[in-house]
Amino acid sequence: MIDPQSVPRFAGVATFMRRPHVYDLGETEADAAFLGVPFDDATSYRPGARFGPRSIREASTLLKPYNPETDTDLNEFTIVDHDDVPVVPGYIKDTFEAIEERIGTVLDHGVVPVLAGGDHSTTLPVLRAIAEKYGPVSLVQFDAHSDLWTEYFGRDHNHGTTIHYAIEEGLIDPETSIRIGERGGLYGPDDVERFEAAGIESYTATEATTLGLDAMGDRIGEIVDGPVFATIDIDSVDPAYAPGTGTPMPGGFTSREILTLTRQLHAVDLIGFDLVEVAPPYDDQSGSTAILAANVMFEALCAALESSTTNTNHDG
Amino acid sequence: MIDPQSVPRFAGVATFMRRPHVYDLGETEADAAFLGVPFDDATSYRPGARFGPRSIREASTLLKPYNPETDTDLNEFTIVDHDDVPVVPGYIKDTFEAIEERIGTVLDHGVVPVLAGGDHSTTLPVLRAIAEKYGPVSLVQFDAHSDLWTEYFGRDHNHGTTIHYAIEEGLIDPETSIRIGERGGLYGPDDVERFEAAGIESYTATEATTLGLDAMGDRIGEIVDGPVFATIDIDSVDPAYAPGTGTPMPGGFTSREILTLTRQLHAVDLIGFDLVEVAPPYDDQSGSTAILAANVMFEALCAALESSTTNTNHDG
Amino acid sequence: MIDPQSVPRFAGVATFMRRPHVYDLGETEADAAFLGVPFDDATSYRPGARFGPRSIREASTLLKPYNPETDTDLNEFTIVDHDDVPVVPGYIKDTFEAIEERIGTVLDHGVVPVLAGGDHSTTLPVLRAIAEKYGPVSLVQFDAHSDLWTEYFGRDHNHGTTIHYAIEEGLIDPETSIRIGERGGLYGPDDVERFEAAGIESYTATEATTLGLDAMGDRIGEIVDGPVFATIDIDSVDPAYAPGTGTPMPGGFTSREILTLTRQLHAVDLIGFDLVEVAPPYDDQSGSTAILAANVMFEALCAALESSTTNTNHDG
Amino acid sequence: MIDPQSVPRFAGVATFMRRPHVYDLGETEADAAFLGVPFDDATSYRPGARFGPRSIREASTLLKPYNPETDTDLNEFTIVDHDDVPVVPGYIKDTFEAIEERIGTVLDHGVVPVLAGGDHSTTLPVLRAIAEKYGPVSLVQFDAHSDLWTEYFGRDHNHGTTIHYAIEEGLIDPETSIRIGERGGLYGPDDVERFEAAGIESYTATEATTLGLDAMGDRIGEIVDGPVFATIDIDSVDPAYAPGTGTPMPGGFTSREILTLTRQLHAVDLIGFDLVEVAPPYDDQSGSTAILAANVMFEALCAALESSTTNTNHDG
Amino acid sequence: MIDPQSVPRFAGVATFMRRPHVYDLGETEADAAFLGVPFDDATSYRPGARFGPRSIREASTLLKPYNPETDTDLNEFTIVDHDDVPVVPGYIKDTFEAIEERIGTVLDHGVVPVLAGGDHSTTLPVLRAIAEKYGPVSLVQFDAHSDLWTEYFGRDHNHGTTIHYAIEEGLIDPETSIRIGERGGLYGPDDVERFEAAGIESYTATEATTLGLDAMGDRIGEIVDGPVFATIDIDSVDPAYAPGTGTPMPGGFTSREILTLTRQLHAVDLIGFDLVEVAPPYDDQSGSTAILAANVMFEALCAALESSTTNTNHDG
Amino acid sequence: MIDPQSVPRFAGVATFMRRPHVYDLGETEADAAFLGVPFDDATSYRPGARFGPRSIREASTLLKPYNPETDTDLNEFTIVDHDDVPVVPGYIKDTFEAIEERIGTVLDHGVVPVLAGGDHSTTLPVLRAIAEKYGPVSLVQFDAHSDLWTEYFGRDHNHGTTIHYAIEEGLIDPETSIRIGERGGLYGPDDVERFEAAGIESYTATEATTLGLDAMGDRIGEIVDGPVFATIDIDSVDPAYAPGTGTPMPGGFTSREILTLTRQLHAVDLIGFDLVEVAPPYDDQSGSTAILAANVMFEALCAALESSTTNTNHDG
Repeated sequence: MIDPQSVPRFAGVATFMRRPHVYDLGETEADAAFLGVPFDDATSYRPGARFGPRSIREASTLLKPYNPETDTDLNEFTIVDHDDVPVVPGYIKDTFEAIEERIGTVLDHGVVPVLAGGDHSTTLPVLRAIAEKYGPVSLVQFDAHSDLWTEYFGRDHNHGTTIHYAIEEGLIDPETSIRIGERGGLYGPDDVERFEAAGIESYTATEATTLGLDAMGDRIGEIVDGPVFATIDIDSVDPAYAPGTGTPMPGGFTSREILTLTRQLHAVDLIGFDLVEVAPPYDDQSGSTAILAANVMFEALCAALESSTTNTNHDG
Repeated sequence: MIDPQSVPRFAGVATFMRRPHVYDLGETEADAAFLGVPFDDATSYRPGARFGPRSIREASTLLKPYNPETDTDLNEFTIVDHDDVPVVPGYIKDTFEAIEERIGTVLDHGVVPVLAGGDHSTTLPVLRAIAEKYGPVSLVQFDAHSDLWTEYFGRDHNHGTTIHYAIEEGLIDPETSIRIGERGGLYGPDDVERFEAAGIESYTATEATTLGLDAMGDRIGEIVDGPVFATIDIDSVDPAYAPGTGTPMPGGFTSREILTLTRQLHAVDLIGFDLVEVAPPYDDQSGSTAILAANVMFEALCAALESSTTNTNHDG
Repeated sequence: MIDPQSVPRFAGVATFMRRPHVYDLGETEADAAFLGVPFDDATSYRPGARFGPRSIREASTLLKPYNPETDTDLNEFTIVDHDDVPVVPGYIKDTFEAIEERIGTVLDHGVVPVLAGGDHSTTLPVLRAIAEKYGPVSLVQFDAHSDLWTEYFGRDHNHGTTIHYAIEEGLIDPETSIRIGERGGLYGPDDVERFEAAGIESYTATEATTLGLDAMGDRIGEIVDGPVFATIDIDSVDPAYAPGTGTPMPGGFTSREILTLTRQLHAVDLIGFDLVEVAPPYDDQSGSTAILAANVMFEALCAALESSTTNTNHDG
Repeated sequence: MIDPQSVPRFAGVATFMRRPHVYDLGETEADAAFLGVPFDDATSYRPGARFGPRSIREASTLLKPYNPETDTDLNEFTIVDHDDVPVVPGYIKDTFEAIEERIGTVLDHGVVPVLAGGDHSTTLPVLRAIAEKYGPVSLVQFDAHSDLWTEYFGRDHNHGTTIHYAIEEGLIDPETSIRIGERGGLYGPDDVERFEAAGIESYTATEATTLGLDAMGDRIGEIVDGPVFATIDIDSVDPAYAPGTGTPMPGGFTSREILTLTRQLHAVDLIGFDLVEVAPPYDDQSGSTAILAANVMFEALCAALESSTTNTNHDG
Repeated sequence: MIDPQSVPRFAGVATFMRRPHVYDLGETEADAAFLGVPFDDATSYRPGARFGPRSIREASTLLKPYNPETDTDLNEFTIVDHDDVPVVPGYIKDTFEAIEERIGTVLDHGVVPVLAGGDHSTTLPVLRAIAEKYGPVSLVQFDAHSDLWTEYFGRDHNHGTTIHYAIEEGLIDPETSIRIGERGGLYGPDDVERFEAAGIESYTATEATTLGLDAMGDRIGEIVDGPVFATIDIDSVDPAYAPGTGTPMPGGFTSREILTLTRQLHAVDLIGFDLVEVAPPYDDQSGSTAILAANVMFEALCAALESSTTNTNHDG
Repeated sequence: MIDPQSVPRFAGVATFMRRPHVYDLGETEADAAFLGVPFDDATSYRPGARFGPRSIREASTLLKPYNPETDTDLNEFTIVDHDDVPVVPGYIKDTFEAIEERIGTVLDHGVVPVLAGGDHSTTLPVLRAIAEKYGPVSLVQFDAHSDLWTEYFGRDHNHGTTIHYAIEEGLIDPETSIRIGERGGLYGPDDVERFEAAGIESYTATEATTLGLDAMGDRIGEIVDGPVFATIDIDSVDPAYAPGTGTPMPGGFTSREILTLTRQLHAVDLIGFDLVEVAPPYDDQSGSTAILAANVMFEALCAALESSTTNTNHDG
């Protein structure tokens, strides 16, 4: 591994956290693998998330390996950069197949998937692969939107329908899942009913912060059961902190709030996660969205690796 | 109306909330009319607010019509885009006349004016038209600045003197008006005295949030009396959330705070409002300021339309 | 029509050249109709061209109606803004159908289609509608790339395969077509052979400027035969002049060169044109790409309308 | 004067070319005085030129003092930064008075005025002061627009009417004046006639470059007679080179062309000049427009100082 | 001093708060002197802070002189802009000598140093000059990082080692110093021990806000003893509020928090301060980082001048 | 090697032209190795070139392997990404040693060095390594500046003194070297004499284009003798085409001109090259500078590899 005090962080090929670039997971005993899912053709407003993995890689070169908040030292784990899924621009279902297959391979190697989208449609094939291994899992969703619509423009798959189909296909268990961060307008009062009927407990951004983030963490722990997959839509964060996204919605979390919320996942059996909807063409000059995304992924990665060291029975 | 699930939100001519573009209010039974006031020649620092209406229109295409926080469904109302006031660049008084005349026409049709500036000088002719119909109204002002100065550069009308002249001309009743969000340096201790003498109750951003935004809403309700006009200067919000403005001042509201504050206007008899000082040339790459402004206007519009359904006596 | 000397150009809803917004072409006797094609899911690198129509509309508000170079006065023609094609994000073939149908309607009304993409894949369904009416047409293509590849990522339709399929489907006559502006690397020497075999005469950007743009115009006139459709990829222009595009390639035309080249189309029977690949998220702060695109469209529109006045037999 | 090899160019208060900041010209024997005219309320489209002087000052810190093309060593002259005219935002006529008075003072001291706008309306009061001293002068205008309109929005003074009123008021002699760089659309064929009737010889950008810039320089020398004032609108340059301007028009000069054209002014009796319409909010991240403007001013300053050393009779 | 109501704030040469530009402090009886330290060659990630002083000067032109929160009227003090230290780009130790010498001169004149970096390495020579006059001082450090590392890339001096050497050289008294705002990853668990061993009391951003900023102010007052120097790294603030910095770290203070924290320094004997790591090339289009930095400096300046009026014994 | 038609160009870790990332050249039989030199502490104005290698890598993913202008197929060569030199930020001489050592290793392996700066100071240690192997070489320099100054700020090594020391140390033979693209102001007339005395034939940008680029190529061929190293400063190009650089100078080459000039190097025995001064923080939103730099490197790489196949005696 590169020694950041002998090689500056701005130097060299930008892999995730400057970790080794590994095409074949069989070559190494990795604990976790960063994998990009550069697909954004199922977005309903602004595209650009296909460049999310590249921008997060670049921002991640600034990350340091030790987490003093949780006493997690990533130097004790083998983390690799597993490149990107070979998506098929313009072809949603072909891309879904490519994603499902590649995540399946990662899981077959017993490696924690650390995924960077891409738009939120890409979470559906990820969950297909997850469910193939684990059965229906608990989902923790940080998101400004429910993604529980049934169709867009007369077609089924889109970044706003992901969770609907994840439930319909039995990939997640709504009763042990939770959504945090929702806010903003809807298409009509029917939406409210449909979302409630879906069975996922939901906390708006205001409700979550009013309750308190520690209490929110406790509630997550109470609701989930068994293996947990976390899907973090960067638009759960306020556009002031994460302007580079496809459907920005004011009123979201601050950076400190999303980092604290993510850190709460240490208490659950986190088997993997994705962070989606970072759209670099809309990011600011400083790359603030990518930098925040990299830091959130760092917290989630710490949580997942701590889980994997204590809950090793998944692959047993 | 355009169906957002059959026509994508990035498609088509950008009118406010994708509503019909109507030059003549006599052609329709509108409940509310969006109207741009693209004038910025009375700004003391950075111009650019003339492009505010255009940028808010574009950002508003992302808005959905139902407000789950207040159970308001804008699909039940007729909202139109009434184009812009034909301002006269470089000529303040001519522009003021054009504004006053056009707002007068809107009010004559019994339509709620939904105004997008432009710099804050434009609120003076708006209030002239409002007072012509309603007499002196209660003003709710969200603003980083008092706008109570008497002159700038030896001339009277400017975006920093609006409220002074509104009081002097008897357009608003200072005793039933309130200002929220003030902060930052002044020209000298005399300013403090002058502002207090003006008679408008004022809460700084820190005072408002320390008090609590619900309590702040209650206080608004106690102070105002009769018809209320709200003037929302986007610089009441912190530059992190609204960088695209002419005289940015750190220490302002977050997006969630301004949205919550605006939502409090549901409790008053809101007869119209303007949102001013969005200066797109200084906005970020994502258009965060315009997006926030569109969302704040959505909350104010919901409040105004709910008011207008319960308080229909104004036009009676 | 709006009088630009009484209403400032930055005011009002941004339609193309501030012309009337017309959903139903049957309501008016239009000579030409601007129509957006906001689809970018078939792009191989950077998306964003879905916002091309909106940005060109905004930039076009600065255009004046009289062309002193060609003595064309657009005030003598009825030009309307016909909104956008209702594309289906993420679904190429569904979108192609929507485009073909809408262009068909425009042509049925005898109106010159003035199209703003969208990525270059959208030209294929446009040509399908054109050929449906006119039979195989002559194509004038300004482009950095041939778009003659047969597939991308194992799939047929993509912004790099448009011209290949246009020939294969018999929509254009390669022998009376011409491509100007090509440059840059290829995948291998086979590409050169394939492009030559396609039968379209090609001039690189260097060849065209070495030959001289007037001579280039003469050559266009010699090659084409009968109705001509022009497809202008903004990446024919150098990235210094048009940075906001999906696959930028240095070494292209200057703004003066592309304007002069486009003006040469006055000599041919131009029945319509599209300008594609303007990707606003990558444009500069001044919107230079959109401004140039609007000016190029102005030249092409003048050429098409002059053609249509002298060659009215198409609809006869 | 600051030694650029002992103090880095990015250090220190940014005065023009790092020259002394002098409020009172009586304190020094200056040869030339840089003076900002930060007014942009008479612009018809994009404001922002009020920040032109500040951005040109910053960019000018990178200029070196010796011009190898003309063998001019600015170290042999006393050049000062004379701050800005105290304009009155929003009040055109008051501002015109302030400008005329301040330029008058500069001329009274026998100092060459080196002016940075501001929008092009500001040239009218400058010419009033010039004519007060010199009588009608020859004008060399580099500009994309004629600025020969008679009114805008029903009012006389605006950045598009400057030259019309300069002729009408007898400030310049049209017969010995020249305009170079015009291009783009007009309001109608009447414009062509009116511009010709004004009597200023005009070369479009294409005509000038086709003729050749050396020949263009010769032609300037033949036309002008006596004292020459040069007014350089940065929009004479193409937006690729100067995106930061209020009414950008493609097809303009390259940087090398405008530098060469400006250098031709060495051959005439240049008594002063202004460079207008640099609008920093629309400039690129690198400040390219300001950098080019600073370099053009450097060339014009060399020309003016060489003129002033050989033609000292003006103040005699 | 410039009267902001007769000369607009965007006009004129941009000195700090539009105060006089003074090279020789002997010429005036200044109370405080703004001084730029434009050096960034000791940064470990993103350079650009060399342009910090210039951008803060520009942003400071918007500051008004009276602080209503503390009833401080800067018009009662003589504040000058003392230009920049003549740093030596690329040569750390030579630069350190130039800084130490220049600060020494400022202190010799009994003037409060108001310093704008530059990267955080520049604080070391500042503290050398401070300690030369005052002996070891109490340090109040607002910072995302401890800057307590001992070396970077095998070399001692760097922006991450400043405080380590300040302690080692006896320039500050760690027992009466305090650090507020730390957060983010570290190189390993050893870092935690080393930082604790250094002896400076530290509050993370979360700890400080949980404790409450008033209580935090009280704690500062309890810890410090005697003369206090404050070093404010702008990265103590969250990147949403201050994106223009070299090593951004999410989870930091809001603008209101940093302004409130800085205002707490009124209670201590503040003898000077620096604000470092503003890197304009990474700032947003609005210059938000520079604007916030200018406002924070305004608060610190008020605190320092109030201290200096009540604690005049330092120079006695 | 990655197949661009099966894996999209925006996918995956960004290595140069998507070539393998190789730390140890002994592991492969490489023909050419891309190597970053991320050092910018010797720049005299704007830093940021340390991020040049990273941005060029990203832009290079859009390059295709076959050059139709020269019939060069890079698929026939083994090209690797050899990561970056471990520079030492803030320490010029230490960095020079690291560079010289690493280039030496590349040359020892008989691999063509393909270098991306970094500022122009980095070329001196590169030439030291080159001269160690080849003796004094012919230098072809494309540059806006001579880089022939002897010192800056009283210190020797800096990006403006590189060529002076290269001559003084006998690393290049000035009589067989050539400089193309110089322009802009100088410190005084002495500079002209000093530059001429250095003995390198120089063509300004205007002289080169007036002569014609083919003739310029012929002249390069006549002047150089034996092994040639090319050093390409991106500021030889005009800021409109390459805004992202440290000391931009208007009047430079267009993209087509620099590509054509670089292509002329096919005729000489090119043993390696560097492209320096790409400063991404100042690049435009589209990354135009990096994209142009990548294309220029592509042309130079084709030239160098063609040279190396015909002139294999260097390592013999």
